Amino acid sequence: MKAALFNGPNNITVGERPDPAIRQPTDAIVRVTLACVCGSDLWYYRGLSPHDLGAIGHEFVGVVAEVGDDVHDVHVGDLVVTPFTYSDGTCVLCRAGWPSNCVNGGGYGNHGMDGGQGEAVRVPFADATLVKVPGSGHSDAMLRSILALSDVACTGHHAAVSAGVGPGMTVAVVGDGAVGLSAVLAARRLGAARIIALSRNPARQAVAREFGATDIVAERGEAATEVIKQMTGGLGVEASLECVGTGESMATAFAIARSGSVVGAVGAPHDVVVPIDTVIFRNVGLRGGVAPARKYIPDLLADVLASRINPGRVFDFETDLDHIVDGYEAMDDRRAIKSLVRVA
Amino acid sequence: MKAALFNGPNNITVGERPDPAIRQPTDAIVRVTLACVCGSDLWYYRGLSPHDLGAIGHEFVGVVAEVGDDVHDVHVGDLVVTPFTYSDGTCVLCRAGWPSNCVNGGGYGNHGMDGGQGEAVRVPFADATLVKVPGSGHSDAMLRSILALSDVACTGHHAAVSAGVGPGMTVAVVGDGAVGLSAVLAARRLGAARIIALSRNPARQAVAREFGATDIVAERGEAATEVIKQMTGGLGVEASLECVGTGESMATAFAIARSGSVVGAVGAPHDVVVPIDTVIFRNVGLRGGVAPARKYIPDLLADVLASRINPGRVFDFETDLDHIVDGYEAMDDRRAIKSLVRVA
Repeated sequence: MKAALFNGPNNITVGERPDPAIRQPTDAIVRVTLACVCGSDLWYYRGLSPHDLGAIGHEFVGVVAEVGDDVHDVHVGDLVVTPFTYSDGTCVLCRAGWPSNCVNGGGYGNHGMDGGQGEAVRVPFADATLVKVPGSGHSDAMLRSILALSDVACTGHHAAVSAGVGPGMTVAVVGDGAVGLSAVLAARRLGAARIIALSRNPARQAVAREFGATDIVAERGEAATEVIKQMTGGLGVEASLECVGTGESMATAFAIARSGSVVGAVGAPHDVVVPIDTVIFRNVGLRGGVAPARKYIPDLLADVLASRINPGRVFDFETDLDHIVDGYEAMDDRRAIKSLVRVA
Repeated sequence: MKAALFNGPNNITVGERPDPAIRQPTDAIVRVTLACVCGSDLWYYRGLSPHDLGAIGHEFVGVVAEVGDDVHDVHVGDLVVTPFTYSDGTCVLCRAGWPSNCVNGGGYGNHGMDGGQGEAVRVPFADATLVKVPGSGHSDAMLRSILALSDVACTGHHAAVSAGVGPGMTVAVVGDGAVGLSAVLAARRLGAARIIALSRNPARQAVAREFGATDIVAERGEAATEVIKQMTGGLGVEASLECVGTGESMATAFAIARSGSVVGAVGAPHDVVVPIDTVIFRNVGLRGGVAPARKYIPDLLADVLASRINPGRVFDFETDLDHIVDGYEAMDDRRAIKSLVRVA
């Protein structure tokens, strides 16, 4: 089959990988229809995070092509969306609501697993992992939003959930990438009254407003902190969402957080120092991490299917599998928020 | 009046300070009967944290001697316990449940405020700050437990609350000082089924068991992590309570925390690095800080008065105000868990 191949930093090509086959009776093979490029793929592309040579990509929507003997809940022909990690659904951590930390789970597109940026993927624990998309004849816009549930929408949602966003709250989102914008959408969906998006990019500011941002702050670092404190009676926001993963973004997220609040952090960390004095002396908590997407997808999917949310709006660049490198480059150059890849 | 005086590291004497007087109509003057030495006072004593010269101490029980014109809920002659910070009870942060972060609040025994380690204290916002102790003729043991509510019992409770301790959970407590032991008591009170106390000190192990610890781990650092993982099916504990504040204790607290759990941290931080990769890749949260004692005291006081808990058991050294240095030295030498000071 055809698939994107990670050959090292700044070197992704499209080539041949073995067709996936059922190995365990709980496996399914999914023919990928839509895939996309994640901000974390960019870290690999830029050589800033290690990645195995070979398959890459962990977000996809597709159609079930084959199932193992112990797969009962998804069937050949089903349209499915996958969370970006697979999980058995039965271990202690899955049962506790942490499928992305499943004892027997893992990710796609690395360590020998098929990548989402390819024509087909072997999905372990198919019943527990895959979410069947009900209905048929979904519009392209809706399919894009369903694809967003594979990772970015759930990751933004996790930032908001982790920070305890609830009705009437004042929230700030640090980061105007696809995850940050998704966090704005999530905060709005959870009832936040005021959502301050930090962004200096007009295209991203527009999506942020469309997703529910009430205020845009173009300043960064200490200047942003100053502005947001002024906007919040000197106290800071009731929920601060960290959607970047750098030292500066984390510092800002803590600085603008009101005492007693929680920073919801989902950015893959690079040179992050947690300001422990703020944690202890201002009671600002830190929660978040790799989103338990499998737990979140059903609720978010219902809202997508009812057209209550349109998380697919983050895709502003589109290509096909043959030209996937264009999708990486558009994001690397910050020309695109997030690149969609039509596979079939 | 007579009071302990901080003259610099390793230099505490007992001398004269001006008698406190009502300055604001919301003030009360409390004649101190019992005070004590906090682990955080030791950081000052050892010269590891800065402290103003003069008054010191922030935990006390006493009798109201005078009230300002706007004090209505406490009266002259009332037996009262104070949280270790004063708070106005009306600001946004107080109303949100964070009195220790009160916009107009502060601490005792530093920055010009009277210290608890003295004969009398001016208490700002007396109605909002002080908690009246009902009844009379309380036993000495009960009074010691009431004194513990001023800080240490609430701080241990905050570690447990912050980590989300609940019925049936497996909890570990890092730190066998007075706060760590109080955290054991709090975890038991909140219904934890298994409480693992990290301690290599036989006297403290005994108090830990008395307070509800089901298991004692004498190992430290990576060896402790190994043992606790073996005890918990390889996954770690459902709530990890950090009650020390050093780099090693925080590292251990995170290492033994199950994915998806929260580290409840209350140790005053010294050279602490938060392992951000554990936060993000294992979804281990961090909450805690300066305990909102004023919020916790009423419930804990009810349990003390009903003899359901005896947090005063942490006091294993006793002296009077004239000999308070002995109390500091006993703790500094780790001969004492916590020193009680009889003032009147």
